[in-house]
Amino acid sequence: MNTYKQRVLDLRALMQKNNIDAYLILSADPHLSEYLPEYYKNKTFISGFTGSVGSVLITQNEAFLWVDGRYWLQADKELQGSSIVLQKQGANNTITKWLENNLDKNQILGVDFRLFPLSLKKDLQKTCKANLKHIDLITPLWHDRPALPKEKIYEHESQYCSHLRNEKLQLVRQKMKNLNAHAHLISSLDDIAWLTNLRGNDVDYNPIFLSHLLILEDKALLFVDSLKINPDLEKKLNSDGIWLKNYDEITIELKKLQNTNLLIEPLKMTALLIDSLDKSVKIIEEINPSTHLKATKNVKEITHIQNAMIEDGVALCKFFAWLEEAIENNELISELDIDIKAREFRAQSEYYLNDSFATIAGFNENAAYPHYKATKESFAYLKKDGLLLIDSGGQYKNGTTDITRVVPIGKPNEEQIHDYTLVLKAHIAISSTIFPKDIAMPLLDAITRAPLWQEQLDYIHGTGHGVGYFLNVHEGPQVLSYLTPALEKTKAKEGMLTSIEPGIYKANKWGIRLENLVIHTKVENPKNTDFGEFLYFKPVTLCPFEISCIDTNLLDEKEKTWLNNYHKEVFKKLSPKLKNHIKALNWLEKRTKAIL
Amino acid sequence: MNTYKQRVLDLRALMQKNNIDAYLILSADPHLSEYLPEYYKNKTFISGFTGSVGSVLITQNEAFLWVDGRYWLQADKELQGSSIVLQKQGANNTITKWLENNLDKNQILGVDFRLFPLSLKKDLQKTCKANLKHIDLITPLWHDRPALPKEKIYEHESQYCSHLRNEKLQLVRQKMKNLNAHAHLISSLDDIAWLTNLRGNDVDYNPIFLSHLLILEDKALLFVDSLKINPDLEKKLNSDGIWLKNYDEITIELKKLQNTNLLIEPLKMTALLIDSLDKSVKIIEEINPSTHLKATKNVKEITHIQNAMIEDGVALCKFFAWLEEAIENNELISELDIDIKAREFRAQSEYYLNDSFATIAGFNENAAYPHYKATKESFAYLKKDGLLLIDSGGQYKNGTTDITRVVPIGKPNEEQIHDYTLVLKAHIAISSTIFPKDIAMPLLDAITRAPLWQEQLDYIHGTGHGVGYFLNVHEGPQVLSYLTPALEKTKAKEGMLTSIEPGIYKANKWGIRLENLVIHTKVENPKNTDFGEFLYFKPVTLCPFEISCIDTNLLDEKEKTWLNNYHKEVFKKLSPKLKNHIKALNWLEKRTKAIL
Repeated sequence: MNTYKQRVLDLRALMQKNNIDAYLILSADPHLSEYLPEYYKNKTFISGFTGSVGSVLITQNEAFLWVDGRYWLQADKELQGSSIVLQKQGANNTITKWLENNLDKNQILGVDFRLFPLSLKKDLQKTCKANLKHIDLITPLWHDRPALPKEKIYEHESQYCSHLRNEKLQLVRQKMKNLNAHAHLISSLDDIAWLTNLRGNDVDYNPIFLSHLLILEDKALLFVDSLKINPDLEKKLNSDGIWLKNYDEITIELKKLQNTNLLIEPLKMTALLIDSLDKSVKIIEEINPSTHLKATKNVKEITHIQNAMIEDGVALCKFFAWLEEAIENNELISELDIDIKAREFRAQSEYYLNDSFATIAGFNENAAYPHYKATKESFAYLKKDGLLLIDSGGQYKNGTTDITRVVPIGKPNEEQIHDYTLVLKAHIAISSTIFPKDIAMPLLDAITRAPLWQEQLDYIHGTGHGVGYFLNVHEGPQVLSYLTPALEKTKAKEGMLTSIEPGIYKANKWGIRLENLVIHTKVENPKNTDFGEFLYFKPVTLCPFEISCIDTNLLDEKEKTWLNNYHKEVFKKLSPKLKNHIKALNWLEKRTKAIL
Repeated sequence: MNTYKQRVLDLRALMQKNNIDAYLILSADPHLSEYLPEYYKNKTFISGFTGSVGSVLITQNEAFLWVDGRYWLQADKELQGSSIVLQKQGANNTITKWLENNLDKNQILGVDFRLFPLSLKKDLQKTCKANLKHIDLITPLWHDRPALPKEKIYEHESQYCSHLRNEKLQLVRQKMKNLNAHAHLISSLDDIAWLTNLRGNDVDYNPIFLSHLLILEDKALLFVDSLKINPDLEKKLNSDGIWLKNYDEITIELKKLQNTNLLIEPLKMTALLIDSLDKSVKIIEEINPSTHLKATKNVKEITHIQNAMIEDGVALCKFFAWLEEAIENNELISELDIDIKAREFRAQSEYYLNDSFATIAGFNENAAYPHYKATKESFAYLKKDGLLLIDSGGQYKNGTTDITRVVPIGKPNEEQIHDYTLVLKAHIAISSTIFPKDIAMPLLDAITRAPLWQEQLDYIHGTGHGVGYFLNVHEGPQVLSYLTPALEKTKAKEGMLTSIEPGIYKANKWGIRLENLVIHTKVENPKNTDFGEFLYFKPVTLCPFEISCIDTNLLDEKEKTWLNNYHKEVFKKLSPKLKNHIKALNWLEKRTKAIL
């Protein structure tokens, strides 16, 4: 029998034994992370679906997997034989709506509250009539479960950090005081890594480590596998007022809290931790103060980021020069080679540690899927004419990068040039906009999309996300997307690092996305107007766009000026580092010439 | 003693007698209208403040008036001697916050629930600790209170209406059925006027009449002063299933409802009507279906609106030609004359009935107040060089108009030309945008403001509001403003009539606002893309912009093309009607010449 079909049957037997009518499995770990350790891939264990996000619901008669449009094809394939039915997630088809409409008040919905956001629990308690019950039905079934990661934790050297860790803790304690909180519990791993100036290797791409952090008025407790931290580092942490506790001891310590005002962020906190609190604890719900602090990079961080961008830009020039030559020499290059080669050139930097996400290298129709990933089982060779989309990034100890460029293989045709130019116009439109500080960023997105809308085109993903500093390539709280509610926390603040990545995707043809990272920067000549401060998106990514794909007739003077200024800056910053790499320098020089 | 000081003292005595700790008076009538009959101007009676919006709160020791920035100067003046203190309303200073922070649970807050939105009552019940109590303390004090209006109600002739009234009622009943509602109560006067194809004269500018409408499955009850409707009209209404009841009988009829699902919109319904319902009535809260129906104009209405715009455009050409000649002849013209003359020319149309709002005619620094209104006591003469802003509109039986233009008196200077051109660029930016149908309109506003933001300028009002069809010049649900939450109801629908009116206001200098009305229109060449339907804002207002105030160097080719096309259309539509008005025709011809 199909492995997953058997597992569903086994789960149903366990459900029956425990009087559970429906069992819900999310893609989540106790930190609600984007990337999960193998240990926590419950959803894949039960369904076989390997995509990063999806929710499984099992009842005695039904079995569903909800996934969004990115994964429909993949899920359809991976679910075959599993008895699990694909639910195409959308505004009108969500798991919460299903639970609302299909369960009644006499039924019990089982969930593992260790892996379940507090905010979602609260929502379900309002909309779902069934009773929620905490129960782990996966551990009893998963006999060969992988171990939790044991990777060493290391310091992010203080010369690269915005503040010393005790300074950062003081900043958070100041915010706690303003909120009248005596204690603050953090489970989100990038917040903890940023606050402690520590990094780890527990998951792919994000340099974080499994832990919780409880900040009290006079000390902080870091719950972490003690074997990951060597004694010297532990002493340093102690001298900064941080004391180690075992990863599992978090519930014990939380139970000790009495008559305390505890600050948490419900979106980033699992339900079980909060359920374990004494009734005398008063919960204060607010976005984690560290989320705002780490999102707004200070001058020191920005200087490092600019240096990391030079490292990344140099690697990209070498990479693209290699690609150009290889294609000219008719070498047989695959999408998988692109990933390997890009990493190879990045790894030449002394600051590089890892990639910041799985490279997307998509040739022609493959790139029409915004989140395409070539695999050993399925990939394309760069043969004949076409467009190659490359979305990649690196983790450098002085910054995280994320860039998308599209290059022609052979000669681009008219429609390709038209589409490329249109995406570039969208990119320039938002990159050259001045806007009021503190505007909710979703309100700015229309400026990006207007050139595409003009031709009745659009793209189904956001225009931009926040980016960490030698941390997660996706970080909040800002988001540049008209598809996202314009909440308070999405406001544009000075010093934020954000991606700008409009695109056009044409099924069976190609995908074009052009992405820079930008720093939210005060206008250089602030005027004394009545309307407060204004910001703009200053590009920090250093890599030319593809002049051979641009129809200059479609650009107006302002757009040309923006592009020429950008290319001038790219050449100025990168060319000194390429003196000994003449092929790369030639590649760069050719592509940063001013257009008329 | 100051009249208002005395009234506050009298009110306090009444409050003490009735055990009321604080008494709250809004600007409101039983229909929550924008313009109030004299009878309902409680706020002015108690405070002397004549501005259209403001809230008064009286306690034994304190007396406050909250008003927004438009009215601070005026309120400061009018409150003198009244003992009432001005509260400058803003995000951090609202009456609801004051009530939340300053009243405790042993206190009683008195309000007249006949004049109080249900939605606000619900909000206060959540945030304000004091007990709310319905009590009318104004009637006992107001001895010479004006009578309720007795103006006749007349039919909006069916040739001008989108549907017959029984058809409109059927459309609403269909929505009621979808919402599982057996009855639907409407108190908002524009909804009632639209649904019944009736118009009245009970307040200034808005052609509505005081009434409530209760729509049942088999009939509708119109609660209205029966003297306002003549017997013939009553018979016609009866034959359409509408039966008259006295205006005051509404509570009696509501009490008769039993075991009924009643549809209401809490934002447009007063608290007392709902309090009077039997407990067996289940309330269904939803935006009034008629609000969406009347907001999206159908082809018949759009054709009439286009004709009304010709009437209005012809009047404006005559008016501006008159003004030009008067200024050339050194006649002494005041801001008040502008109002009179504009009305005089509009009144020459056989379709014209009234102005659609109080004309704003502001010369130079007066126009720096977006809602300036010249009065007999305070107005300016058009002397020396400067800019004159005129915001005016008419009620025609085939449509409601609203237009703002700015004309130079004498020769405009460089800064004026710069500012005028910038506002025009903002106007053209949004007017030439194509956008996805159903996008929440606040998300589009950035496109309008981007040219102003580029120079670190902005304006503190919205960019656009919905406009009624021979009805209120301000109507929902759409709103084009980034300052407004992007709610579901603000979505852009085909057929909506909306204003586009960006501006620049410079204190002590001038105000520039350029306003057209536009119809949300499907793109003429819909492409078969994957992104649904796209709309654009098609101008229906017909009046040239002021070429002498435009710096053509600041316009790009697309902007010039938009302007030239618009002027060509204006000339084409208006010139045939001006054959016998040579001065007006000359004025028009000169201003609609193509710019290069």
